Amino acid sequence: MSARNGAAAHATYDALMALVREAGILGSTAGILSWDQEVMMPPGGVAGRSRALALLARLRHERLTDPRLADLLARCEADPGLTADPLSDTAVNLRELRHDLDRMAKLPASLVAESAALASRAQHVWAEARRKSDFSAFRPVLEETLTLQRRKAECYGWPADGEPWDALAEDYEPGLTAARTEVVFAPLRTRLVSLLERIRGTGRLPEDPFAREAIPADRQASAVRFVAESLGFDFARGRLDVSTHPFCSGFNPGDVRLTTRFHERKFLDALGSTIHETGHGLYEQGLPPEHAGTPRGEAVSYAVHESQSRFWENQVGRSRAFWRWLTPRLPEYLGGSAASVGADAAFAGANRVEPGFIRVEADEVTYNLHIMIRFELERALLRGDLAVADLPQAWNRLSRNFLGLEVPDDARGCLQDTHWAMGAFGYFPTYSLGTMYAAQFRQAAASALGDLDAMFEKGDFRPLLAWARTSVHEHGRRYRAEQLCAVVTGSPLSAEPLLQELEAKFREIYRF
Amino acid sequence: MSARNGAAAHATYDALMALVREAGILGSTAGILSWDQEVMMPPGGVAGRSRALALLARLRHERLTDPRLADLLARCEADPGLTADPLSDTAVNLRELRHDLDRMAKLPASLVAESAALASRAQHVWAEARRKSDFSAFRPVLEETLTLQRRKAECYGWPADGEPWDALAEDYEPGLTAARTEVVFAPLRTRLVSLLERIRGTGRLPEDPFAREAIPADRQASAVRFVAESLGFDFARGRLDVSTHPFCSGFNPGDVRLTTRFHERKFLDALGSTIHETGHGLYEQGLPPEHAGTPRGEAVSYAVHESQSRFWENQVGRSRAFWRWLTPRLPEYLGGSAASVGADAAFAGANRVEPGFIRVEADEVTYNLHIMIRFELERALLRGDLAVADLPQAWNRLSRNFLGLEVPDDARGCLQDTHWAMGAFGYFPTYSLGTMYAAQFRQAAASALGDLDAMFEKGDFRPLLAWARTSVHEHGRRYRAEQLCAVVTGSPLSAEPLLQELEAKFREIYRF
Repeated sequence: MSARNGAAAHATYDALMALVREAGILGSTAGILSWDQEVMMPPGGVAGRSRALALLARLRHERLTDPRLADLLARCEADPGLTADPLSDTAVNLRELRHDLDRMAKLPASLVAESAALASRAQHVWAEARRKSDFSAFRPVLEETLTLQRRKAECYGWPADGEPWDALAEDYEPGLTAARTEVVFAPLRTRLVSLLERIRGTGRLPEDPFAREAIPADRQASAVRFVAESLGFDFARGRLDVSTHPFCSGFNPGDVRLTTRFHERKFLDALGSTIHETGHGLYEQGLPPEHAGTPRGEAVSYAVHESQSRFWENQVGRSRAFWRWLTPRLPEYLGGSAASVGADAAFAGANRVEPGFIRVEADEVTYNLHIMIRFELERALLRGDLAVADLPQAWNRLSRNFLGLEVPDDARGCLQDTHWAMGAFGYFPTYSLGTMYAAQFRQAAASALGDLDAMFEKGDFRPLLAWARTSVHEHGRRYRAEQLCAVVTGSPLSAEPLLQELEAKFREIYRF
Repeated sequence: MSARNGAAAHATYDALMALVREAGILGSTAGILSWDQEVMMPPGGVAGRSRALALLARLRHERLTDPRLADLLARCEADPGLTADPLSDTAVNLRELRHDLDRMAKLPASLVAESAALASRAQHVWAEARRKSDFSAFRPVLEETLTLQRRKAECYGWPADGEPWDALAEDYEPGLTAARTEVVFAPLRTRLVSLLERIRGTGRLPEDPFAREAIPADRQASAVRFVAESLGFDFARGRLDVSTHPFCSGFNPGDVRLTTRFHERKFLDALGSTIHETGHGLYEQGLPPEHAGTPRGEAVSYAVHESQSRFWENQVGRSRAFWRWLTPRLPEYLGGSAASVGADAAFAGANRVEPGFIRVEADEVTYNLHIMIRFELERALLRGDLAVADLPQAWNRLSRNFLGLEVPDDARGCLQDTHWAMGAFGYFPTYSLGTMYAAQFRQAAASALGDLDAMFEKGDFRPLLAWARTSVHEHGRRYRAEQLCAVVTGSPLSAEPLLQELEAKFREIYRF
């Protein structure tokens, strides 16, 4: 390739990236508006905000489906100088753009609009149905949603040995299939159910030592902020606010926003939520800023994002070493009564295992069982093996089998989550895959860094964050999730590290 | 006109408005991003935010200069059905759009870009020069700014009997000229200088009774929020936050945001700033929501906006009746020590008159004198009657003449305001015109409603707000400023009502 051709290719690539970054800016602008809507906006702003978000979505879509962009992409793909090294920044951007645009092109605009309208309607219907615990009120709109999701899956298509679920999961976890999910989930289910039986067999149930007294929200806020900062969250490039449901929004690595929530008797919930979102936030702050707005500067997938939140929430925040560091420091923030809480009691309280109906309140042992219930059911719904009308019954049967619980009503059963109302089929398993990746990453970090617990006890989380930066964050979308796992840990995704970790930890706490 | 033509005209007008509203949404999205930047954004977000704001400005400009829009506008203007009644919604929108687009068309894109770049650079240079009180550091960039502003004025043009200042002031106050400003300012200057002499002659200087003790920011915040709500600010359609410089941003009538600031010994500053911004906010909340994003749903001008902020700040918040209502209620918010502050002491403290160097800290008597200094100087600079090099000397001479002050350094003199560094020539007088409109509006409101003081004493501000809604807010840009003044008050703009009010109030307080 002559220098002249090289320069021309460079100009083509730059023009392509300029369009992509423009779409990226419109996306992150919509992100700011959505954050503001959840955290700051007065109720009167709703109508105007919807119009602004719809306009930004349209402008972003126009850019990404602009024939100029497709043409530039095709010209770049034809240039070996940009693609020869498949892990180069240019090759990664072209590969991931191709993936995203091809998927976008497969959905007719009418189906996109229909899905958005239905999702908006279905969420209202769902919220009302949940409030009344009335599945029959949700059933028609869930049937409509399922029909639309099946049409969507058909537009995307799936391989001969696959199924509709695969086509939809691709939006959240590129490359993931139901078959692969089943393989990874199988040992997890057996051994978690057995672990749960052993735990329950001890009859022990550690108390939450922070629930003894009411702790005012402002004190809890100062404590969780101290923890987020200690873990490495950079408040010069981020914020921490309050919202009904905790979340993390990253607009670019220089502006990453977390939210949490406070109840006077639920400090562990506020802390756990904050650490979870801090994990997401550390990932966003660690993405390469020079690639912001292009795939090379984006997170790999939902499961990998969740691996980062679970990593800090569970592997760090639910370890004895972490509590040895934190408990002596808490009275400064929470007030004097926290001085009576020792590291062992806090550690045990943060690892209380008790099957419950609600996924988002579940502990480390039962959480993944909740996910497996949803995975089995959404897969069967999409295949046509399960009718929507039979969903509550099927849900309750699986809850009995996996969790040993009799679901008392649909509000605490199949109506509890908003995902299906949103049209998000194929999403749930990413939570569990993330949890597994997190345990696997912990093993790799320990191999590389040595005694992590010794570091946690000193409150020195910098080596771990530095490891996460170079191992995961800085790669952006260079690797797909399972490929990243192999590069970082030397092994394919497996439930084994998580199971070993949980079995060892709970054996120690529950003494079985 | 046949029904068919009517329907077609309607479709053309609707298409025009759809484009205009889209530009409006991009503008208000930029507004949210700017509010967030001032109030919420972490420092690391600066670079990404600048890119987002630049993109939104470009997209908005592209829409407003789209030949399709010009074509639609021309077709609508040719349709008497839309323009026959010059005060109809359609006629107002077409007239004001024509005004805005014609001005936009007169400026070459290169000049707009050059001005934006220079303003950004000049503000940095100015901030540093002010910090060091070094006019010589600011002088070159102010000379550049002046050259660019003169070029801008030439592009806009001005009538034979006008001057360059008129061309620039049109951006802030359509129809205002330097000659007209001078006519209104002349009696104001003479009588304010004489009023100031009489006040100073008494040797009295009321103390600020709230400065005796430190009042924590959170207590002040609850008090000023109570006042804003009592005046009628709707918190379901707005917010109140903290920023370095208080401001009001209205994104649409359903989402209007105020900011204020707190210092432990400056409760009156926090309160005055809050009431001022509440006045702006009440105007924004009172604009007709069905016209949001079009001229018919926008504020008239800078002076009329300022008339609403000053109205609540001065005519209400600096009245004895207001303090009679507020002082007994303050201890609930500020704590017990506020119980010792009586209505008369608070009223006198809020009306303390003392010439000072800084405009933004000035009282009601000296404030307008500060403005007149700036007006004379910017007019002379633009005419070429004053060289930038001679600005400090000219500034200091006028400060001596108008305020009786010897300016000790340029930081407290001609370097104090950012407006000229921003390229905002022709802006300053709108502050004083707003102050005059406010007094004139108060007279009209009193004629319509009767004893305003009796209402204030009971804390019943609803009739006054209702009057402001129907007299000013709901008109949007239906009338130009002076026309609105004539409609509302029956008289042209005049300094007389303000002077009468100030002379009566200060005679009572200072007993001369």
